[in-house]
Amino acid sequence: MPDYQAPLRDLRFVMDELLGYPAHYARLPGGEEATPDVVAAILEEGARFAREELLPLNQSGDREGCLLEGGEVKTPKGFKQAYQRYVAGGWPGLAADPEQGGQGLPPSLAMVLSEMICATNLAWGMYPGLSHGAADALRHHGSAVQKQTYLNKLVEGVWTGTMCLTESHCGTDLGLIKTRAVPDADDGYTISGTKIFISAGEHDLAENIVHLVLARLPDAPAGSRGISLFVVPKYLPDDDGHPGERNAVSCGSLEHKMGIHGNATCVMNFDGARGFLVGQPHKGLACMFTMMNAARIGVGIQGLGLAEASFQNALGYARDRLQMRGLSGTQAEDKPADPIIVHPDVRRMLLTQKAIAEGGRMLVLYTAQLVDVVERSQEAEQREHAEALLGLLTPIVKAFLTEVGFEATNEGVQIFGGHGFIQEWGMEQLVRDARITRLYEGTTGIQALDLLGRKVLMSQGESLKVFTKEIHKFCQAEDANPDMAEFVRPLAKLNAEWGELTTAVGMKAMSDREEVGAASVDYLMYAGYVTLAYLFARAVKQARLALDDSLEEATFYRAKINTARFFYERLLPRTRAHAQMIQAGGESLMAMSAEDFGRGFEI
Amino acid sequence: MPDYQAPLRDLRFVMDELLGYPAHYARLPGGEEATPDVVAAILEEGARFAREELLPLNQSGDREGCLLEGGEVKTPKGFKQAYQRYVAGGWPGLAADPEQGGQGLPPSLAMVLSEMICATNLAWGMYPGLSHGAADALRHHGSAVQKQTYLNKLVEGVWTGTMCLTESHCGTDLGLIKTRAVPDADDGYTISGTKIFISAGEHDLAENIVHLVLARLPDAPAGSRGISLFVVPKYLPDDDGHPGERNAVSCGSLEHKMGIHGNATCVMNFDGARGFLVGQPHKGLACMFTMMNAARIGVGIQGLGLAEASFQNALGYARDRLQMRGLSGTQAEDKPADPIIVHPDVRRMLLTQKAIAEGGRMLVLYTAQLVDVVERSQEAEQREHAEALLGLLTPIVKAFLTEVGFEATNEGVQIFGGHGFIQEWGMEQLVRDARITRLYEGTTGIQALDLLGRKVLMSQGESLKVFTKEIHKFCQAEDANPDMAEFVRPLAKLNAEWGELTTAVGMKAMSDREEVGAASVDYLMYAGYVTLAYLFARAVKQARLALDDSLEEATFYRAKINTARFFYERLLPRTRAHAQMIQAGGESLMAMSAEDFGRGFEI
Repeated sequence: MPDYQAPLRDLRFVMDELLGYPAHYARLPGGEEATPDVVAAILEEGARFAREELLPLNQSGDREGCLLEGGEVKTPKGFKQAYQRYVAGGWPGLAADPEQGGQGLPPSLAMVLSEMICATNLAWGMYPGLSHGAADALRHHGSAVQKQTYLNKLVEGVWTGTMCLTESHCGTDLGLIKTRAVPDADDGYTISGTKIFISAGEHDLAENIVHLVLARLPDAPAGSRGISLFVVPKYLPDDDGHPGERNAVSCGSLEHKMGIHGNATCVMNFDGARGFLVGQPHKGLACMFTMMNAARIGVGIQGLGLAEASFQNALGYARDRLQMRGLSGTQAEDKPADPIIVHPDVRRMLLTQKAIAEGGRMLVLYTAQLVDVVERSQEAEQREHAEALLGLLTPIVKAFLTEVGFEATNEGVQIFGGHGFIQEWGMEQLVRDARITRLYEGTTGIQALDLLGRKVLMSQGESLKVFTKEIHKFCQAEDANPDMAEFVRPLAKLNAEWGELTTAVGMKAMSDREEVGAASVDYLMYAGYVTLAYLFARAVKQARLALDDSLEEATFYRAKINTARFFYERLLPRTRAHAQMIQAGGESLMAMSAEDFGRGFEI
Repeated sequence: MPDYQAPLRDLRFVMDELLGYPAHYARLPGGEEATPDVVAAILEEGARFAREELLPLNQSGDREGCLLEGGEVKTPKGFKQAYQRYVAGGWPGLAADPEQGGQGLPPSLAMVLSEMICATNLAWGMYPGLSHGAADALRHHGSAVQKQTYLNKLVEGVWTGTMCLTESHCGTDLGLIKTRAVPDADDGYTISGTKIFISAGEHDLAENIVHLVLARLPDAPAGSRGISLFVVPKYLPDDDGHPGERNAVSCGSLEHKMGIHGNATCVMNFDGARGFLVGQPHKGLACMFTMMNAARIGVGIQGLGLAEASFQNALGYARDRLQMRGLSGTQAEDKPADPIIVHPDVRRMLLTQKAIAEGGRMLVLYTAQLVDVVERSQEAEQREHAEALLGLLTPIVKAFLTEVGFEATNEGVQIFGGHGFIQEWGMEQLVRDARITRLYEGTTGIQALDLLGRKVLMSQGESLKVFTKEIHKFCQAEDANPDMAEFVRPLAKLNAEWGELTTAVGMKAMSDREEVGAASVDYLMYAGYVTLAYLFARAVKQARLALDDSLEEATFYRAKINTARFFYERLLPRTRAHAQMIQAGGESLMAMSAEDFGRGFEI
């Protein structure tokens, strides 16, 4: 069975040494509680929970899957008990507002824990994970009564939430949704329609489920400007706020999926269900984006968690598995063959995983600080700056970390050889589970359009400049440091090129909008590699300072520098390909008619 | 349910127009039967068989899997009947020697059919597929009696074959195998040991199974020079050659795998089974490579087939699925949204699939001609030349086509969005099935070492020069053709760079053998892209000639040119990354100790 240890040492490096979390928390309203000791205790307890409660249920949950019987969904054995312990431990409300019964700790802390949960049991983690999105929507857009009725229960964790957006004919294009909401006599609405792909739509973990549902009012304008958001509970709360009458919402069937088998992916039927408007009529899409942005970062963290899980197990296997002798001679004289970690190509794969996990962790924690500031800071200027950066980085976190996270899980299978394909080793499950992360909450293609089209070009490149200026400053500050030259020189070059490529695509896009879509995914991947390059360069600087200070844990810091060097030498060159592809333009993409694509096989 | 039409038009282009198969067959001993009419009829009938008999069993076979009960393996519903029809149709012996009851048609023709089988039902295709390897070993190394007893039955298809190599502690490193063969009183051997990952090791399709087993004789030297090959039938043939006494070989269990569920992957126990030596004692590894080289090309074809299957279905979906309006405006006024094939990024993914499938097909058919020559030609010089090229291209076909084939199946899932993750659409099965192709018959890492270490560097680059010279000649011949410049110029540059990179790695490797492993996978991928670039350039030339000739099927030829342009603009730039990574050297790979890899999470 796969093992997992939360990367507490690396987390300490990134949080305390690299990104100054202790000072960040001390400055943050509500953050004063998050002292280094408290943070360390929470992370250790979270690590224990993930390893001891969730990890043992990951493979069995995959094998068992969920079962729909008589309208009720049975989750895999142990899932409910683990969820109860999660609630009893107070985890759901960790970063929630004390007004709603939360502990008021910084959001970033919940994100760190999320990495551990995703690494040990993604399918399970989606049940509480979906609640966060629903809670966010209610917190930002719900009425006082709605907060009291639903949000407190979500924060407590006794109820869970869902996001009911997709219908069979529309996922990306929510303007096409058909679910209807008709005002009833009673200040409420009658909701009718069918939603698909509803994660955690029905299950046995909690006493009630709070669905947040996009639907159209009778007078709604066509398209995405005619969508409203409703809260539709599985059980209508009674006067005491307890689950009362069963609402007319039910799970019609469960999807059979490639992975995340332990999570119930439901077709949800709303057959005249009672619902309540959240926010303003026809403004549902804006509310939805409140859920979505948090969810997107959450999915990026899934990519990170799965990469780390795959890396740790592949490393263990590579140290144990004996196969062939080293190319330059025998290394383990006393054994019938050398452990495969002696082979350079196995090391290349392991380092790819390690660089993705460690780079991804830096990116997530860098982004998490921005979330803290946006959510908590009292200073408008600081908030605005953080918001601009967060907007830019959200699609990168979501799409880049899931693309490379999927790659990392595949390297894990590859390191195991044929055994990687066998279910009992658990490595192929990580690939299957990771596969969804490139799709849900907006595919990589959608994130890329968001990044290049909405975030970068629509702001005339201003939001990008906020970030590239920061990188530029770092490069300037390190310019005279010969130890940093191998990192800072290529980084400065890439940072400048990033701006040039943006201008080039922007110019082309002025005469042909298709050029944005033609460049977008390569642009996003390019952005991801440069962003990680920046963070790795900072990590090197930090590691060198630590090494100058003392020789304590020198192996940790030297490994960090080496991982950064590997990233620069063996992953960053991919920008050379992406830069060329960004510049290639859309002509070869757009030239063929839809019919001509099939000339080789259609008669 | 997924659909499939064999790409007969594209096959005709590659075989008849690009690679001159009609003339090639006419020159080939035994090939005179393969007239254009006969070939066309066989391909059409093969296409029908794949689509009508195999495709309908692909999803059900995946769902059902195989069942082991009382030592017998039950294959999924319909598999046996399809196999019987396959035998009745004479397919197993298509390219086999008439002496053994085969039809004596060229091997390349069987490879074309193999693409269709892999595209429609890989799990099923592995049952007859494994027989080919076993037959090859017996044909090259078996005694006259062994040929008569076993090979004829394999050619007829009433018996199937296996390759029993892997043991639990060794896959790549066959020198470690422990299975023992002790001479018995009767000119035979008693085989004892356990083999794992034996595809088609036990099943109900055929009346007997012929295992080819690697084992050690009592006096065997240690390591790979002490391995011998044995034929071990499930039922010992009686005096009439019919299955007689049950041999002491049995399936101990079936593996639970990520994909190819319809194929029985067996743990095989040899409990003092009766076997017979094939070839010379201790020379089993050489015999094994006879099976292996054919099998490796076969696995490359699997990558190709799955890419084509995924492409065809993604194309259908992209034409039908309505989602969002085109970036530059509405395209389907009469519909609520535009078909997603209008979006440049969807086209990028489709073209990636298409370029991989069409490029892969050219590579397979180019290689298949070499197989024909090696197997059939009477001219020693021709054979030697083909053998050198075939040796060079075999690891590229195997590893490059499975790496990009896996990518293509993933693009298929991505085009389907969330629906791609749902089993009923069939796209995720292609990913799961494709995942094994990067592993079995030697992982990508092993192929890369074979290419760079054994084939290229060990021959001092001579085998590479055979190929780069051919490319160079083509470039020179087209140098003055302005229509070809956009292809020939980058190709000539890459071709020269290929040689330079080889020299650079070779020089480094002289002082440090690890440098071979450090560069090998990037080198293989680089080689794959350049090889496809060469074939696409030739395809463009051919398409232009056809367009000059007449406007018949102009859309086909223009699409071919456009696909080539896409390949050059959007896939070939990956060579920029690989070239840098090849040159990066092994230092960052080899610097860390095995312990230091885990410093971030291990306490």
